[in-house]
Amino acid sequence: MKYYIGIDIGGMSIKAGVTTKEGKILATDTFVTEQNGDPAVMVKNMFELCEKITAKAGLSKDDIAGIGIGSPGTINSAEGVVVYANNIKMDNVPLVPMLKKYWDTEIKIDNDANCAALGEATFGCGKEVSSSLFVTLGTGVGTGLILDGKIWSGNSGAGGEGGHIALVHGGEHCTCGEDGCWEAYASATALIRDTKRAMEKHPDSLMHKVAAEMGKVNGRTCFEAAKLGDKAGREVMEKYVEYVGAGIVSIITFIRPDMVMVGGGISNEGDYFIDMVQAYCDAHNYGAGHNPPIPVRRALLKNDAGILGAAALVM
Amino acid sequence: MKYYIGIDIGGMSIKAGVTTKEGKILATDTFVTEQNGDPAVMVKNMFELCEKITAKAGLSKDDIAGIGIGSPGTINSAEGVVVYANNIKMDNVPLVPMLKKYWDTEIKIDNDANCAALGEATFGCGKEVSSSLFVTLGTGVGTGLILDGKIWSGNSGAGGEGGHIALVHGGEHCTCGEDGCWEAYASATALIRDTKRAMEKHPDSLMHKVAAEMGKVNGRTCFEAAKLGDKAGREVMEKYVEYVGAGIVSIITFIRPDMVMVGGGISNEGDYFIDMVQAYCDAHNYGAGHNPPIPVRRALLKNDAGILGAAALVM
Repeated sequence: MKYYIGIDIGGMSIKAGVTTKEGKILATDTFVTEQNGDPAVMVKNMFELCEKITAKAGLSKDDIAGIGIGSPGTINSAEGVVVYANNIKMDNVPLVPMLKKYWDTEIKIDNDANCAALGEATFGCGKEVSSSLFVTLGTGVGTGLILDGKIWSGNSGAGGEGGHIALVHGGEHCTCGEDGCWEAYASATALIRDTKRAMEKHPDSLMHKVAAEMGKVNGRTCFEAAKLGDKAGREVMEKYVEYVGAGIVSIITFIRPDMVMVGGGISNEGDYFIDMVQAYCDAHNYGAGHNPPIPVRRALLKNDAGILGAAALVM
Repeated sequence: MKYYIGIDIGGMSIKAGVTTKEGKILATDTFVTEQNGDPAVMVKNMFELCEKITAKAGLSKDDIAGIGIGSPGTINSAEGVVVYANNIKMDNVPLVPMLKKYWDTEIKIDNDANCAALGEATFGCGKEVSSSLFVTLGTGVGTGLILDGKIWSGNSGAGGEGGHIALVHGGEHCTCGEDGCWEAYASATALIRDTKRAMEKHPDSLMHKVAAEMGKVNGRTCFEAAKLGDKAGREVMEKYVEYVGAGIVSIITFIRPDMVMVGGGISNEGDYFIDMVQAYCDAHNYGAGHNPPIPVRRALLKNDAGILGAAALVM
């Protein structure tokens, strides 16, 4: 029986896990990412992390069939190079060839959001379908596209940036520099902005009470107020569902994956939220009368998606 | 040496051609499509058309390796069924099994826009790349997506409707029933609407003179006026280029095909127009500083794209 290692490089730490072919994680460990650190040191640390978890799982190096890596930034997966990653300061770092000098096995690398999508598609809510879209609703809107079981990242590996498709061309300003991206309407950041605007306009709204109790305005404020029967809160929530849904509908209209998987902080609102998004998509799906609806599901794997997706790169 | 037949089903006529593997058309012929006609009669006519062009090309049935069909509507290509086609009134017609009763060879079918995209990608301006987007700017905005040399049409074969991705969510009304689709801004129909609005607002614009000379307002009016130095005409043209470009940028951001191929009536404005679209895309491409630009090219095959793409289905 063969085992796999998945490495999830984050801005704060590097996590790795040994997994079975069925996606069971046998052992994990982590080390702190050094900002602006020497890539050579980071690779040595990664190798030692891999050795450590292999031993922890009671295995030897021969039991490991391959190592997959998920990294932030633009990745050239054919060459195994991190072309550019802003938050861990890597610039043309040949991560795969460097790690191969320590451990000569099959090693692959892809973008971290793509790996999370592959993990969710392979072992999470998308495991019954062959093509799926993973959408993360957090600080930004991240997407990963799985077509026929494989990550689609397009020319130069630089695609999959679904958060920056147009939703309202010329509308709200986006962090990317353009105006009107989906992310500028459907991220938690956008939701908080819209919540604050509505609170200013409606001094009587229960959103003020909810925010005071939570200590701040956050992505949950409008949902909680809506549940208490607050009209202004409900309006913010419904508009947000519309924004999330309209972006998903755009992608369904063009790509029609078999399933849409929703993760990230906002997905913690649970089925209550997911069901509203599903209803929006079903009503506005192009050719809604003729074409079957595309299921929208809440992602299941949470923080394990990155490790499992990275491991799935070499399965 | 083997030859292929491509059949292009249109609202007015059915065209077919015998082609080589290199995309050279050796013989073609056509018959008039009967509206609301009996599908059994249509299939018999299609078979006779195939026999006729095979003889015209100086070949026998044994020389034909396969027959490809491009049909309007939603197609179940796995089963060879036209699920629904509005303009030739077909409803669950098993076209491939029906034609196989006359000619027992490899027969495949796909949507006509997808076939045109495959034709252009295989034998036209996209032949050097493996993934491409075909955009038709005509009465509507049609798209066809080729990924790794194959048509991508997604779940139930109902994807690829890129004309109905959001451009300005909640904006101009679209024929599909939604508001703000790309088609509602980037089709020739939308351009004519915007030209007429600008003419009303600018009674002194040279667009009035151009339209009077052409006998009507059409998709060329603003381009011609702009070339004559008309400011209002230039504004309409530049806004239209922005709309076309912004939709392409959305798709590049998410899918990043290797090339975008532009066809349809408006593409006849030629390099003057295509170069402006390219410039827009290069300036607004997500990560424009880090990622190489995606080339935008004018489609080459014109009316032959359908026959060649249908034939390419069985190559």
